[in-house]
Amino acid sequence: MANIGFIGLGIMGKPMAEHLIRGGHTLFLLTRSGVSEDLVALGGIVCTTPQEVAQQAEIIITMLPDTPDVEKVLFGNNSIAAGLTDSSEVRKVIIDMSTISPLATQQFAIKINELGHDYVDAPVSGGDIGAQNAALTIMVGADEAVFSKVKSILELMGKQVTLIGGNGAGQVCKIANQIIVALTIEAVGEALLFVSKAGVDPEKVRQALMGGFAASRVLEVHGERMINRRFDPGFRIELQQKDLDIVLASASALGISLPNAATTHELYNACVAHGGAKWDNSAIVKMLEKLANHEIYKRTE
Amino acid sequence: MANIGFIGLGIMGKPMAEHLIRGGHTLFLLTRSGVSEDLVALGGIVCTTPQEVAQQAEIIITMLPDTPDVEKVLFGNNSIAAGLTDSSEVRKVIIDMSTISPLATQQFAIKINELGHDYVDAPVSGGDIGAQNAALTIMVGADEAVFSKVKSILELMGKQVTLIGGNGAGQVCKIANQIIVALTIEAVGEALLFVSKAGVDPEKVRQALMGGFAASRVLEVHGERMINRRFDPGFRIELQQKDLDIVLASASALGISLPNAATTHELYNACVAHGGAKWDNSAIVKMLEKLANHEIYKRTE
Amino acid sequence: MANIGFIGLGIMGKPMAEHLIRGGHTLFLLTRSGVSEDLVALGGIVCTTPQEVAQQAEIIITMLPDTPDVEKVLFGNNSIAAGLTDSSEVRKVIIDMSTISPLATQQFAIKINELGHDYVDAPVSGGDIGAQNAALTIMVGADEAVFSKVKSILELMGKQVTLIGGNGAGQVCKIANQIIVALTIEAVGEALLFVSKAGVDPEKVRQALMGGFAASRVLEVHGERMINRRFDPGFRIELQQKDLDIVLASASALGISLPNAATTHELYNACVAHGGAKWDNSAIVKMLEKLANHEIYKRTE
Amino acid sequence: MANIGFIGLGIMGKPMAEHLIRGGHTLFLLTRSGVSEDLVALGGIVCTTPQEVAQQAEIIITMLPDTPDVEKVLFGNNSIAAGLTDSSEVRKVIIDMSTISPLATQQFAIKINELGHDYVDAPVSGGDIGAQNAALTIMVGADEAVFSKVKSILELMGKQVTLIGGNGAGQVCKIANQIIVALTIEAVGEALLFVSKAGVDPEKVRQALMGGFAASRVLEVHGERMINRRFDPGFRIELQQKDLDIVLASASALGISLPNAATTHELYNACVAHGGAKWDNSAIVKMLEKLANHEIYKRTE
Repeated sequence: MANIGFIGLGIMGKPMAEHLIRGGHTLFLLTRSGVSEDLVALGGIVCTTPQEVAQQAEIIITMLPDTPDVEKVLFGNNSIAAGLTDSSEVRKVIIDMSTISPLATQQFAIKINELGHDYVDAPVSGGDIGAQNAALTIMVGADEAVFSKVKSILELMGKQVTLIGGNGAGQVCKIANQIIVALTIEAVGEALLFVSKAGVDPEKVRQALMGGFAASRVLEVHGERMINRRFDPGFRIELQQKDLDIVLASASALGISLPNAATTHELYNACVAHGGAKWDNSAIVKMLEKLANHEIYKRTE
Repeated sequence: MANIGFIGLGIMGKPMAEHLIRGGHTLFLLTRSGVSEDLVALGGIVCTTPQEVAQQAEIIITMLPDTPDVEKVLFGNNSIAAGLTDSSEVRKVIIDMSTISPLATQQFAIKINELGHDYVDAPVSGGDIGAQNAALTIMVGADEAVFSKVKSILELMGKQVTLIGGNGAGQVCKIANQIIVALTIEAVGEALLFVSKAGVDPEKVRQALMGGFAASRVLEVHGERMINRRFDPGFRIELQQKDLDIVLASASALGISLPNAATTHELYNACVAHGGAKWDNSAIVKMLEKLANHEIYKRTE
Repeated sequence: MANIGFIGLGIMGKPMAEHLIRGGHTLFLLTRSGVSEDLVALGGIVCTTPQEVAQQAEIIITMLPDTPDVEKVLFGNNSIAAGLTDSSEVRKVIIDMSTISPLATQQFAIKINELGHDYVDAPVSGGDIGAQNAALTIMVGADEAVFSKVKSILELMGKQVTLIGGNGAGQVCKIANQIIVALTIEAVGEALLFVSKAGVDPEKVRQALMGGFAASRVLEVHGERMINRRFDPGFRIELQQKDLDIVLASASALGISLPNAATTHELYNACVAHGGAKWDNSAIVKMLEKLANHEIYKRTE
Repeated sequence: MANIGFIGLGIMGKPMAEHLIRGGHTLFLLTRSGVSEDLVALGGIVCTTPQEVAQQAEIIITMLPDTPDVEKVLFGNNSIAAGLTDSSEVRKVIIDMSTISPLATQQFAIKINELGHDYVDAPVSGGDIGAQNAALTIMVGADEAVFSKVKSILELMGKQVTLIGGNGAGQVCKIANQIIVALTIEAVGEALLFVSKAGVDPEKVRQALMGGFAASRVLEVHGERMINRRFDPGFRIELQQKDLDIVLASASALGISLPNAATTHELYNACVAHGGAKWDNSAIVKMLEKLANHEIYKRTE
């Protein structure tokens, strides 16, 4: 059993840390808003700085909102890097499970390697439900040897844990996921809106299409939400918007033109302008509805 | 067993007519380039005009490239309408299985009804393979009573035959299908191109994503084609482009804004400009590749 | 002085025909809704079919809404073509001043040439004000010799009459005009909306920008309308939408990808969905405002 | 005459500083790559840190590439802020003439005000030619009283100096400029490419359009460059791309949907992917040409 640090105990991080404790590990915990009683009751140990976490644990997991947050925890004041320097005789592993820039990730990994430690990027998909059920999909960027060392720990939190490639590859895979999910939601929105404004029952169409090439998890799950007008998350608009920020900034840096990701990002901006930051990401259809001056509704009862 | 007319015996229509003959029906056949020997050998009867087909058959099926073709066969010189007028004592059924404008379809149906006959729009998906295996998905717009009358005949050609609604609803459903398929292909293209230019193995990413919300038939089938560079159709670029023409013209007529369908249509234009009219529709990724100055390739062997 | 036919006496055609009568020509007139008393009082002669117009006049001008209208008048029942055939001993000139498809134009010209007559495409810009003031910009596609023959007649209706190239070139030039005007209006809309939502005075910005590279007639005229909320036409949304239909269909036929023309077309669809068919084309900014949940307003009084 | 600090003496900053020296002011200079001999020969005084500049000068001008550069010089190590604190008895003025985020600008201004000093944002347009000829357009965000104090100094560098509003308004105006310029260039590119692929002379079209609503400085200047294939800057692709980064990040923060700015940004990414970072921004047309498989060329000689 290992000493594991866990920084960032939000809606995702808290259940993930809990699975690790229940898996028999000793957890060193830190989060901005204070560690919850539950985790302490289970045996979690509260720390006061990233530096302290990095001194105590041999594996340090971060689960934070965005790139600058990870950078600060890794290299800011009283940082993980400071803690690693204090304990330079042991080769420790940093696992960043946040969704952040793949280009920044590669730079972070190089710096951590230069300090004599290992880096793993391991962003997840599956949302808070996946985190609670230890059913996350985890996309890993790491050296194979390092991956072998931490695989069993990741498997306490996720069902599908895949090594995609070296450092950054986990984040690249997550970007691909976010492009496809956002654009497929937008596509399903265009299609169901067309159907409804043409006077046809969108639910019958959705069911008919599930048998052919239009079939997707998004048509199944998000399509149903659009038709039944249930826009409570799920995955929030503001997070989808932030992830598309990362997508487009990375595409700009790599010299790639992503026309539909760009257009779709603008529609998420519009959602936020209408107070939709906390809506489910399927609510992008509301912006298409505004333009068409028509709201999707079911014909069948 | 019925007397069935079949007009349009191309790559799709020919195997469909064959299934009907094998199902025990008498077929009256017409196609621009001459009816093939095979169908005649099976017992098909060759006609010389749509009018003649409509005089001989009680159910008349059309399977033609585009809206003006259907209009001409229905209402031009020596047309189906002329044949229907000649035999006005029997209530006959026209089944249009082409993919054409839903708005034109509704007008055609009204005219046929005015002549005292019934109209069914029944576009298909599943391609030439689906046609050969009698495994098409058939999306039907018709009155329920008329649908009941022709359902068993449609089932000789398709596996999934669904009544979506009244006249035009079959075409509306097909449009929804084409929007989703084209835009999901484009989305998968953006994602896999990003992955490849970022130096990560697109095949590993594709497999990892098949487990989550990005999963779709398109990621499975067309994603694989993009990675393995197999762009022989499948569903041809020029047909996808023509179907998006119908999508966008219909959206314009109905007052709907379809931003990503519009952008994607332009990329199909570009494919045609590069000699790609006969490529598989997954080859839209080649245009994204041109912009990014990078071609997707596998890292694994 | 010449015998001139004029078919299509709407908001544009009527004042244009009047200038020709006042220029001393004999006019043979036809329009769907009946020729106005004014034109008859000036000496215009009313005809009942395009065929009759073509029999009487040596130069026949058409000013009609869209491609199918021109096709019908040229080649339908009792058409211009029929009139030309009746009078085949004289080489007559057809001048189409409508805005229609350049590809269809080239085919029309070939057919007219085959009948032994000449064709000129001469679409205009400048709107009803330009028509009333004989101040239209006229973009001509014709053989040079034919252009010389009709130039003085065109100059009775317009101030700037330019021969762009052979048949179709006038319509191609008009398409270029429509692309630039529509996209510049959209661009000015994005910019002024940004300024206003950022809390800055859009009128001050508009004036500051008129001095630099952002300066355009559109910023001057349409920008002012957006800020002062005056959306009475001008050039109507429904006409701009129809012209973009021609733009995009032509681009599709020629194999050109026009990403921003495509997106902008969809925003015009949205305008129509909000009852804006008769608004000025600058009202496209209203759709951007809907997405941003903010309406442009002046800070200065 | 005043003591003026100037930080950032690149292709723009150097001639601007020179005009101030020639105007009789004493200049305290700092730039990353070392102050040029010319400026020293004219009487410029070399400093070694932003702090030193701020201690010596009463007005401190910054002309730097991007937001983080300005932030670092203002508030990093040995920063302007440190220099201001050292000399807190005098109310000094910071003038940032860089093109940076308007939202960051407002925060910088608040911080500088809290230190007891004034802030002016004064981004420019007109390029290196404008800088050399003291002919820049300068868009100012400042309190009126502060603007009055520095106006004559700004007029040594620019011909059109306009107060747009309070802090940030100068940058907002610059953003509006960049949206319109980039999107008008793209529009002109779509139009001229269409013309050329349709076989018509783009130069004749450009001249014809300069008389109507399509007229703009961009059609005049950048249109001519596209036709004559002169893509040496002018304003570099990489700067236009960076400015669109600011545009889109600001739109995201404010909740505005900018569909064509987003699409156009992606085309600039593609330019960079083809080695075009240093091309003139009119070279975006090359990406449209790639998609259309056709390069614009003149028909006339």
